[in-house]
Amino acid sequence: MMKNIESDLPLGVTMGCPVGIGPEIILKYFHDRKDHSPVVVIGDLGVFEHVAAELEYNPTIVSWLPGDPVRPGTLPIYSVSDLPAQNLRWGKPTLETSRAMVACIEQAVQLIGKKQKHLAGMCTCPISKISLKQIGSPYPGHTEMLAALTGIKKRFRMMMAGDRLKVVLVTIHEPLARVSSLLSTNEILDCIEMTAKTLQRDFGLASPKIGVAGLNPHSGENGMFGHEEEDLIAPAIAEYTGPATVSGPWPPDTVFHRAVSGDFDGVVAMYHDQGLIPFKLVHFHDGVNVTLGLPIVRTSVDHGTAYAIAGRGLAQSTSLESAINMAFAIIANRTRRSIS
Amino acid sequence: MMKNIESDLPLGVTMGCPVGIGPEIILKYFHDRKDHSPVVVIGDLGVFEHVAAELEYNPTIVSWLPGDPVRPGTLPIYSVSDLPAQNLRWGKPTLETSRAMVACIEQAVQLIGKKQKHLAGMCTCPISKISLKQIGSPYPGHTEMLAALTGIKKRFRMMMAGDRLKVVLVTIHEPLARVSSLLSTNEILDCIEMTAKTLQRDFGLASPKIGVAGLNPHSGENGMFGHEEEDLIAPAIAEYTGPATVSGPWPPDTVFHRAVSGDFDGVVAMYHDQGLIPFKLVHFHDGVNVTLGLPIVRTSVDHGTAYAIAGRGLAQSTSLESAINMAFAIIANRTRRSIS
Repeated sequence: MMKNIESDLPLGVTMGCPVGIGPEIILKYFHDRKDHSPVVVIGDLGVFEHVAAELEYNPTIVSWLPGDPVRPGTLPIYSVSDLPAQNLRWGKPTLETSRAMVACIEQAVQLIGKKQKHLAGMCTCPISKISLKQIGSPYPGHTEMLAALTGIKKRFRMMMAGDRLKVVLVTIHEPLARVSSLLSTNEILDCIEMTAKTLQRDFGLASPKIGVAGLNPHSGENGMFGHEEEDLIAPAIAEYTGPATVSGPWPPDTVFHRAVSGDFDGVVAMYHDQGLIPFKLVHFHDGVNVTLGLPIVRTSVDHGTAYAIAGRGLAQSTSLESAINMAFAIIANRTRRSIS
Repeated sequence: MMKNIESDLPLGVTMGCPVGIGPEIILKYFHDRKDHSPVVVIGDLGVFEHVAAELEYNPTIVSWLPGDPVRPGTLPIYSVSDLPAQNLRWGKPTLETSRAMVACIEQAVQLIGKKQKHLAGMCTCPISKISLKQIGSPYPGHTEMLAALTGIKKRFRMMMAGDRLKVVLVTIHEPLARVSSLLSTNEILDCIEMTAKTLQRDFGLASPKIGVAGLNPHSGENGMFGHEEEDLIAPAIAEYTGPATVSGPWPPDTVFHRAVSGDFDGVVAMYHDQGLIPFKLVHFHDGVNVTLGLPIVRTSVDHGTAYAIAGRGLAQSTSLESAINMAFAIIANRTRRSIS
């Protein structure tokens, strides 16, 4: 029951790549925000002060240390690096900026971890895959790094989540021609189970409705346009036993419309664009990336570092705002479940 | 210049399968319509009178013969069959209903044809593929039948069109696993050219902007997730010479959002669900299917016979209304071009 205390803990927001739009959207978020849920930033104090002055976003930046209270109306920063802010160039990561970017993530995980319990969860700003490579990181991206830092070997997945549509992908960054050969009943079932668990535990739906998309046009139209529906997808749906109502395989071109209309709380999609095309149409500006399968709460903005526009005051903080709000909602739902 | 006379000719609406929702949505359309553009129905007089009485839609049904004027406020029917309306059962096609369904299409094409010139174009209600098979029709669907009836051997394509999004598909009813092997630079270029021509001639855009979607996630991300973009799609875009501004290959998960936001007048999609998922999200109720490459104007509702709900007064006529309006708009644009 100690877990309940988490609901009073602040949420940690990592700055992401310091020369991308991360610092800027965090500053804009604090500049505009109305609510006072406790949020602290894991970043670089000097960078934030510099960017705030440059872009004329003026939240009250204060230094924060683990255990400190979070004063409403401030932007508390746990500073993990001391970058030469004056010399940084937008869109040009250096070894130092890349190391700071990774340090924020490592620190955030430690502050959430069982030993410390200083943060209730984390929300991440975009990092650069090039920067990760540059410093020899073994991880291709954020999610893999977080899995390793929290001791998870496999079974983590990405949910793209918004108020109107929530999508979980069975395959992600794969050539379209390979998707069919990568699908298996086990993978699909695993995806259904993780989607069900997340909708229950994190989104507070006792008996969620999950629509599973087919792979082929018209879901294969009785085998005329493909067989994966009957060979792989239908068996996975049949194997699922649990409190969620799982149905499909549905024709891919209508299942997302039905989800948006309220027929489904979540959709399991077979490949990247099947899920991301509808998601980005519905939630282009306020989409949130939620990592399923981690022992910690982690949400993320659903956009990249946007080097091309970084530092110009053009970046919107709407996705960050949604990601922060969704992290708090997930933490509240988990807390409620552990009380009840 | 004789062609200009077409703009005063009525549009023909074919009834589709008489035991599907075709007669019902036509009656509902005439029941609700406010404008007086000349529309005549190619169908079965007895069926329409019977369904009108049953569902209490009460337009003034009149018999129409080629050359007759179209009186505003009436539902003029060119009756091509004499089905036993009392004995028909919703959702249960017979040899007679299937033959009548096909006769309407054949008659409409003849009435548009160069010899007769009694109709300016046609808008079709849904037919049943099962019915086509039942009577030994050599055509798998509407479009192939219309191509044969108008003497077109190949180079006809389907555009899904609405106010906000217009999509043309390179491959259609194919298993997803086969899509990559079916793509070719020639096919993609052909699709780009037909899209450009249609946006110019039929939608009145002198210099349309066309976005071409990639095939793979992030458009392959420089070959990391597939090579079709650089091998097949980019060369097709480079080969296009014409007045349209053609760009891409764009990441599939953002090109449709950009189209809806105004960046593109039309999108060339590589496969069925890539185009239909976003189209049905944006235009679920008012989508129109436009056949490209026919010598006649043909639009169609974008839904099927809906046997399950036929005869119950539940079917909406919104897609039919959009398809009729779009046919008139296309006819007007073609007429304007031939005058100017």
